[in-house]
Amino acid sequence: MSSELNHTIHRQHHHFGWDNSNPPVLTIAPGQTVAFDTVDASGGQLGPDSTVADVGTLDFGKVNPVTGPVFIDGAEPGDALKVTIDSFRPSGWGWTANIPGFGLLADQFTEPALHVWKYDAQSMAPALFGPGGRVPLKPFCGTIGVAPGEAGAHSIVPPRRVGGNMDIRDLAAGTTLYLPVEVAGALFSVGDTHACQGDGEVCGTAIESPMEVVLGFDLVKRAELPFPRFETPGPVSRHLDEKGYFVTTGIGPDLMEGARAAVSRMVEEIARAQGIPAVDAYMLCSVCADLRISEIVDQPNWVVSFYFPKVVFD
Amino acid sequence: MSSELNHTIHRQHHHFGWDNSNPPVLTIAPGQTVAFDTVDASGGQLGPDSTVADVGTLDFGKVNPVTGPVFIDGAEPGDALKVTIDSFRPSGWGWTANIPGFGLLADQFTEPALHVWKYDAQSMAPALFGPGGRVPLKPFCGTIGVAPGEAGAHSIVPPRRVGGNMDIRDLAAGTTLYLPVEVAGALFSVGDTHACQGDGEVCGTAIESPMEVVLGFDLVKRAELPFPRFETPGPVSRHLDEKGYFVTTGIGPDLMEGARAAVSRMVEEIARAQGIPAVDAYMLCSVCADLRISEIVDQPNWVVSFYFPKVVFD
Repeated sequence: MSSELNHTIHRQHHHFGWDNSNPPVLTIAPGQTVAFDTVDASGGQLGPDSTVADVGTLDFGKVNPVTGPVFIDGAEPGDALKVTIDSFRPSGWGWTANIPGFGLLADQFTEPALHVWKYDAQSMAPALFGPGGRVPLKPFCGTIGVAPGEAGAHSIVPPRRVGGNMDIRDLAAGTTLYLPVEVAGALFSVGDTHACQGDGEVCGTAIESPMEVVLGFDLVKRAELPFPRFETPGPVSRHLDEKGYFVTTGIGPDLMEGARAAVSRMVEEIARAQGIPAVDAYMLCSVCADLRISEIVDQPNWVVSFYFPKVVFD
Repeated sequence: MSSELNHTIHRQHHHFGWDNSNPPVLTIAPGQTVAFDTVDASGGQLGPDSTVADVGTLDFGKVNPVTGPVFIDGAEPGDALKVTIDSFRPSGWGWTANIPGFGLLADQFTEPALHVWKYDAQSMAPALFGPGGRVPLKPFCGTIGVAPGEAGAHSIVPPRRVGGNMDIRDLAAGTTLYLPVEVAGALFSVGDTHACQGDGEVCGTAIESPMEVVLGFDLVKRAELPFPRFETPGPVSRHLDEKGYFVTTGIGPDLMEGARAAVSRMVEEIARAQGIPAVDAYMLCSVCADLRISEIVDQPNWVVSFYFPKVVFD
């Protein structure tokens, strides 16, 4: 850790949804560092011994709790909150689910499914999946943001210009994130930690894994950011890229349909090649494969590509 | 080159647009290897000595010529044409333009602009851009495809399920591409070679650079591909990733608007940080920065991220 730890916020200090009237659990000065203990994205409804039956009975009022909020002294609307993502202390277990009605291919995968993962939180060796799958890990914050300026309660599910449930897999150790501040004190919260995820999070869940995360805070006055931005200190895909990729594409006038076509075909190919159920291939793609926009200018058709890292089955 | 070269097709054997009545310039057996000499995407209208005035007078009837077509013996509708991308012999020059009415931010950049590049075709050292920019090179085929089954002439600009102007930056040396065949003999053509490009090709052009490209051909019978797919033999971003990335985001219910927001902000930031005109930053982003879909499931808002490699200005 680059700076002295000033505070720890324990997991009982969490909230559901965003609301700028939530009272802060801590007030800090810019320059301070805080450890956050997070609850998993099910809000504790799923655990290491859960079964698929538990997915069907999830209470959606309790999903995606975030630990906080933290009031940062001097933060004002128009500023950027600079968050330095210092380190993670992963728990060693996690879950990935297909939740009916949720996910890019919700129309194709209508039944609940669950995969519970165990991984070595010390070595962070790749997590095993079925016969022969090895998924490289890279912990990050799925939900990280500040309170929206608009009064009232707002769902935690959609990300917003103030951040939140962005599920950006490169908000990992070493990255610096800048969030647009909309209320005095910013009111920062974090949760939904993931042991790994591909770009897109296509089935709707990653390796959902509770962790402690240590973050540093600072302010950039009057940054006037339209949306969050971030900066990585080095490569972002080297845990995945060594053996290359299998890639499917979707081509047409709609990026969403292109993404659906590319993912759908990859799921078919992985399921067939590995002899696993399609829903398992879908969940596996969600935790390791990346959606990229290869071409967005050759009107009227765009190309979305889905990159599955060969290293998983090498 | 992994296999013996069987044929060379010179650049005068090119065509504009796709039409399955174009007569083949060569017939080969599966297993053969062919060298293609390509014309640049302007069809020779721009050259190393061109100026921005030449962008304004481009004849769009002559853009994006492709060399071919090649008839592959035994190829039938429903098969996949397997194309092994063997090697490139780059020309050492290229161009990037902002062409009014074309590109992701066409509404913001309404005036023509042109950057002519010189690079060392032997060393393939990064190409220089303005004061301090160094753009890593990675040659690939921008347009690579087979004739569509539908009769008649079809514009070369949009990519299709049979491939074509896909502008996928990883169709580089060592990659194996599988194209859906829609007509007997497949009728393969290639052109629009690029010295480098970011995912998205956001300004509409890359480093447009004529090259010779060597390709091997084979067939996968009855593959029934919905769209092209490909396989890379190793990492795809290591020429760019060493120093990490600056990343902007766009968050909202429309992927296209998200992409536009992320690119627009990155262009502003690069222009300001480097003290260069915005249109130069836009063209630079097009040749080196990558559009990724970070999150596509947290309804109703998706996250598109735009990754600019720090190595360019390091």
